[in-house]
Amino acid sequence: MAELNIGLIGYKFMGKAHSQAYRNVNFYFEPSLDYRLKVLCGRNEKNVKEASEKYGWEEYETDWRKVVERDDIDLVDIGTPTNTHKEIAIAAARAGKHVLCEKPLALSLADANEMLREVKKAGVKHMVGFTYRRVPAIALAKRLIDEGRIGAIHHVRANYLQDWIVDPEFPLVWRMDKAVAGSGSHGDLNAHMIDLARYLCGEFEEVMGMSKTFVKERPDGGDMDGGLGASTGDQAKLGKVTVDDATLFLANFENGAIGNFEATRFATGRKNKNCIEINGSKGSIAFNFERMNELQFFSKEDEEHIQGFRTILVTEPCHKYMSSWWPAGHIIGYEHCFTHQAFDLIEAIASDQKISPDLEDGVRCQEVIEAVEQSIEKRGWVKIESLREHVTS
Amino acid sequence: MAELNIGLIGYKFMGKAHSQAYRNVNFYFEPSLDYRLKVLCGRNEKNVKEASEKYGWEEYETDWRKVVERDDIDLVDIGTPTNTHKEIAIAAARAGKHVLCEKPLALSLADANEMLREVKKAGVKHMVGFTYRRVPAIALAKRLIDEGRIGAIHHVRANYLQDWIVDPEFPLVWRMDKAVAGSGSHGDLNAHMIDLARYLCGEFEEVMGMSKTFVKERPDGGDMDGGLGASTGDQAKLGKVTVDDATLFLANFENGAIGNFEATRFATGRKNKNCIEINGSKGSIAFNFERMNELQFFSKEDEEHIQGFRTILVTEPCHKYMSSWWPAGHIIGYEHCFTHQAFDLIEAIASDQKISPDLEDGVRCQEVIEAVEQSIEKRGWVKIESLREHVTS
Amino acid sequence: MAELNIGLIGYKFMGKAHSQAYRNVNFYFEPSLDYRLKVLCGRNEKNVKEASEKYGWEEYETDWRKVVERDDIDLVDIGTPTNTHKEIAIAAARAGKHVLCEKPLALSLADANEMLREVKKAGVKHMVGFTYRRVPAIALAKRLIDEGRIGAIHHVRANYLQDWIVDPEFPLVWRMDKAVAGSGSHGDLNAHMIDLARYLCGEFEEVMGMSKTFVKERPDGGDMDGGLGASTGDQAKLGKVTVDDATLFLANFENGAIGNFEATRFATGRKNKNCIEINGSKGSIAFNFERMNELQFFSKEDEEHIQGFRTILVTEPCHKYMSSWWPAGHIIGYEHCFTHQAFDLIEAIASDQKISPDLEDGVRCQEVIEAVEQSIEKRGWVKIESLREHVTS
Amino acid sequence: MAELNIGLIGYKFMGKAHSQAYRNVNFYFEPSLDYRLKVLCGRNEKNVKEASEKYGWEEYETDWRKVVERDDIDLVDIGTPTNTHKEIAIAAARAGKHVLCEKPLALSLADANEMLREVKKAGVKHMVGFTYRRVPAIALAKRLIDEGRIGAIHHVRANYLQDWIVDPEFPLVWRMDKAVAGSGSHGDLNAHMIDLARYLCGEFEEVMGMSKTFVKERPDGGDMDGGLGASTGDQAKLGKVTVDDATLFLANFENGAIGNFEATRFATGRKNKNCIEINGSKGSIAFNFERMNELQFFSKEDEEHIQGFRTILVTEPCHKYMSSWWPAGHIIGYEHCFTHQAFDLIEAIASDQKISPDLEDGVRCQEVIEAVEQSIEKRGWVKIESLREHVTS
Repeated sequence: MAELNIGLIGYKFMGKAHSQAYRNVNFYFEPSLDYRLKVLCGRNEKNVKEASEKYGWEEYETDWRKVVERDDIDLVDIGTPTNTHKEIAIAAARAGKHVLCEKPLALSLADANEMLREVKKAGVKHMVGFTYRRVPAIALAKRLIDEGRIGAIHHVRANYLQDWIVDPEFPLVWRMDKAVAGSGSHGDLNAHMIDLARYLCGEFEEVMGMSKTFVKERPDGGDMDGGLGASTGDQAKLGKVTVDDATLFLANFENGAIGNFEATRFATGRKNKNCIEINGSKGSIAFNFERMNELQFFSKEDEEHIQGFRTILVTEPCHKYMSSWWPAGHIIGYEHCFTHQAFDLIEAIASDQKISPDLEDGVRCQEVIEAVEQSIEKRGWVKIESLREHVTS
Repeated sequence: MAELNIGLIGYKFMGKAHSQAYRNVNFYFEPSLDYRLKVLCGRNEKNVKEASEKYGWEEYETDWRKVVERDDIDLVDIGTPTNTHKEIAIAAARAGKHVLCEKPLALSLADANEMLREVKKAGVKHMVGFTYRRVPAIALAKRLIDEGRIGAIHHVRANYLQDWIVDPEFPLVWRMDKAVAGSGSHGDLNAHMIDLARYLCGEFEEVMGMSKTFVKERPDGGDMDGGLGASTGDQAKLGKVTVDDATLFLANFENGAIGNFEATRFATGRKNKNCIEINGSKGSIAFNFERMNELQFFSKEDEEHIQGFRTILVTEPCHKYMSSWWPAGHIIGYEHCFTHQAFDLIEAIASDQKISPDLEDGVRCQEVIEAVEQSIEKRGWVKIESLREHVTS
Repeated sequence: MAELNIGLIGYKFMGKAHSQAYRNVNFYFEPSLDYRLKVLCGRNEKNVKEASEKYGWEEYETDWRKVVERDDIDLVDIGTPTNTHKEIAIAAARAGKHVLCEKPLALSLADANEMLREVKKAGVKHMVGFTYRRVPAIALAKRLIDEGRIGAIHHVRANYLQDWIVDPEFPLVWRMDKAVAGSGSHGDLNAHMIDLARYLCGEFEEVMGMSKTFVKERPDGGDMDGGLGASTGDQAKLGKVTVDDATLFLANFENGAIGNFEATRFATGRKNKNCIEINGSKGSIAFNFERMNELQFFSKEDEEHIQGFRTILVTEPCHKYMSSWWPAGHIIGYEHCFTHQAFDLIEAIASDQKISPDLEDGVRCQEVIEAVEQSIEKRGWVKIESLREHVTS
Repeated sequence: MAELNIGLIGYKFMGKAHSQAYRNVNFYFEPSLDYRLKVLCGRNEKNVKEASEKYGWEEYETDWRKVVERDDIDLVDIGTPTNTHKEIAIAAARAGKHVLCEKPLALSLADANEMLREVKKAGVKHMVGFTYRRVPAIALAKRLIDEGRIGAIHHVRANYLQDWIVDPEFPLVWRMDKAVAGSGSHGDLNAHMIDLARYLCGEFEEVMGMSKTFVKERPDGGDMDGGLGASTGDQAKLGKVTVDDATLFLANFENGAIGNFEATRFATGRKNKNCIEINGSKGSIAFNFERMNELQFFSKEDEEHIQGFRTILVTEPCHKYMSSWWPAGHIIGYEHCFTHQAFDLIEAIASDQKISPDLEDGVRCQEVIEAVEQSIEKRGWVKIESLREHVTS
């Protein structure tokens, strides 16, 4: 069996999620490649060494350039803050490595486009980490839509609600620093929703948004370089929040559907309520990530007196991915979106197939993200087309 | 159009519910009889006079015998505490009046049987007030079962949970007095569940129960003759609770199904959670009275990947009773079970049809109630057959 | 006791809802006025005569001008399509009658302002029919907000989803005719949401919207003058839909909160899902009209390990209006928002108090409605202030 | 750091669940012992070899006796069908190994008692696999009860509903063979509920049950020695089902609470709906395993107008186990009950503490299981006391 050596850059939240994924692909699935967790990379030697042992990596490294340059690495997985994605991804592609990059792809659309050009030129496999496509309930939603069960789509209604920074005393962390994260709730949360909307409904035509930063200054002292919550700085000082706490936007899709998107970190009591509802001419689907093993489905094709939203417990063997897990009714957890992503990536590399979502999807998402930002600035609608880079390839 | 003059005995909780029903039949439906709210009857003249005016009755009366004896009364509706049902119902039947009697029918099965014999002998229409059959969602459940959608029934799982007397300081009221109410949670709540189970699943074969009185003495001072909560006595004195706070029982049905029933007034936080779930070979239904406009339905006949419990919002014109109400999605309230009951009763009288549930259903229910009581006493199973009175008619 | 004679204009959907309300105020509440259902008015004599008898009105009338001119009428209740509101309301006010007017107040803000000026000048009581304020769960939401339980408001997230015209074969009815209805989902559904947002959160500052008409032509043949679904025209012909099927908008509030609003008649499977969620610095509330007896409430003031959204069953005696109904856990239906509205109106007239919401609230709502329409046209944000008429009074 | 070498007997459903647990303890937690996945044991060499590689075990073995006899094994984990538990556990204990045994403990109470005597005599650590105690939401339920938040317990209401054998064509598997499994739904599902009730409410005093086998013969051809669903035999032949499809029972607890328990494999549409509700004098808790990251909690100590069942999303760092997982709102899956169990077992061994639940809990549970079986046979109540073996130790 062919081999695949993996190098993972970043060992914190995403590093942990990606590490467990690679460990579990072999445990639950039958991958076509003999892959190895070769090297984990992070800047702090003590921490990355510990993490590499805990998470089952053969080696660790403190300089990502060394990982990218190693001959024995086939896949570079980028799980670091947004501002580092571009440089690492391009270097990896130029070195002939396959690339998996966390979302949002880049600080800017220009950067994202550059990344895409480079991976295309290098001819490597590339993937962007929109893991929600790998939730079995979302895979089922896609199947129902492809089967024509909801008909022509009229509405996409998505909101991604969190509340982890409602408290004004919560300290500044890297996710609130524009230079590192690019944006706040918008790139972090709307990015997921935009990708899901593209996956399930189709391409955006134009958008119109607004954003808000409710708390404009926060105590210093949070983790400014890649984790959640670890406190290091001077808590007596106040620092400036340079990103949005909430971003909302309206949208027209190319197929005539309309959309409503909202991302916020200020929805008290909502922890990770990533909800999407799609209404079509023949039915509807609705999903809430806090109950990620369930999908709601309404069909006008049912007899009239028994129409109603079904709560489908997406744990049956006939549901994508689920025959590899537990008996029906035994739910799976958040981290296995990453397990499925890793499995699909490995299989795509093994069979030399295109991966979805790839960096082109990352660019498409970035176009929408940036169009929303422009629309906020100009206080009017922005066509996605106006941002598109037309490559002659 | 033929006329129907109604006399209602009792003006408290049930009197109010029945009064609004008669007023609303004309408002929402197209009854085949020209009925009139002729006379309301209660012992306390001041109260019954006030109630008769408030609730729209033409006259009031303080002696139920006078109502029963009036030539111009066609239907006697009995909404008084259980211990009075038998005497009033028999007198009414003997006077040739149609009878609607609140549940549970009587203090004992013997009394219930006597009532049934008398109404049969008199040839009048008779009905017992198991109003939950008139919830549109329950009517839909019945329809789905009759359509064969859940197949052969394996399980009935019913519980009726309230919490209004969890507080040991809640005073004694007539519903805790065996001489007036017959039993506690059992006759009050299980009676409804037993009737629903008979309606939806079929006849009971044998039962085995247990009951519990958690609080055995309570302050005097509650309403001892027919309302809820109105305080009149000496609260410093403690009186004895002579009924059950909770009664549970297991059951075998004649058709091979098995049942699990629980009634309690001690389920803290559950206000009127009358739940029934029925599992069959091809599907299941589930209902919760606190969300009485919804029915849950699961069908194994759906394609495998879209099976799930549907939440049917039972407010469509195709749902029984609902075309008389509001547009879809506009729910109706508790009291309209009584409105539907009154409408169905009037229509049955108009068309000279048998009414379901009638006093025979009341007797069948009473048999189960009493069989459970016997099973509690003998600490073993009791066959319903062993209690049945075999009338040669 | 003082008397109040009521004249109701319109006998269809709203006429039915308002009629039951007046009948039930006396039944369930203790109003301070001796009011009478004096006269019901509609253009079709046969229909209005039947309705007046069915709904309990003493008399009927076919010309609303005669109702307004009668000396014995004290309150004119306007339940007709939007295009008639202004003329009737102004005539009633000039004749010295109190006015209750259905929502949306008028076809235009200018009309609404004119109506307001006239009722003010006449010194009569005036109310606009935003009945959702009278849902007990919304009254509880207001109470919780006033008690400071959710703190400073950050988000209002409201959508009102219906699906009654998803089928392109559903015929044209008056609600799709701009000349009669003013707008479609916007005036019909967003009007409610806007009023609730003003009630619970505060005044709008600026808005930005979009709208869509998915089905632009429909078969003729629906009821074009004031009911739902009654078919009269030529179904072979297609007529033009001149209103929106869906209208979405974003909003800034004066207090710094931001809002997201969506109204649609194309959300397949959603029948009357009028949802509002409000997130504040200390808690959140959420409401869904399809489960109108429930309120969701989250409090950060709970101890950390027991924080969660409570489902409050708003049927306790301590909840506004509910002590007049049934024991806890026995839910009420849609129509009783109107019952509560009628009771509150009668009480306000009796005690000579200001009514909320009054025509000024109707105007405020109309400003937002019209600002959204302007924003759609100019594809940019519109300040509410820019539409405000500054009366020197 | 001290070492702990683990030998796991059984490689199918439970073997997979336990294997992932041991692999993940190191990944997510900080165990105090340096444990190793030493040897996996199963009868079929090809299968167990494959499983040992897939699941990360250093070695495999085909004879459990060899595992038990190895000097380098410290902990024997028994994940085989029930009929093998006793022999393996006793041999392991006599060899001085710690023992983790799957539930139900044994085919009979006598066997269970013998096992308990042996592990006590051997002085080894012992644990029984009631993993639901390790669901964070159940740990929270226990905490709330211990904090006195629901007061004195009145009701335990538990049902464990599955539907995997509703189809009469589903073949015979070992779980339907009394000789292998001991009982059907009773030992498999009620065992969990009984343990949870003991954990949360206290000791049983007496029980009264019923059971049913709806389908008495099934096609041969299912996996008869330890997995779910793998078909091997002759499907044309019918074999006899020797266990219950459903077992229900009522209970009195020593502390005055009453209980209602139901286990079934015939609840169409319910996949793994393991529900328990506990009502106390001051509050209630409710749990459904299909939504295992949520706990419902009602408190009478809340102010009256805000009382309601909270849905607590048990994913906060303050919730037991959860600080080791993901940010709040990111749920975990079924298998991690086993991860928590493995962690707690390793910690108990490391610190030489008593483990809960241990084999004594397994015996207590077995007493109730067997008392229910006796009650079914004699059709009357059975005291737990009457089955208890009184060891003088």
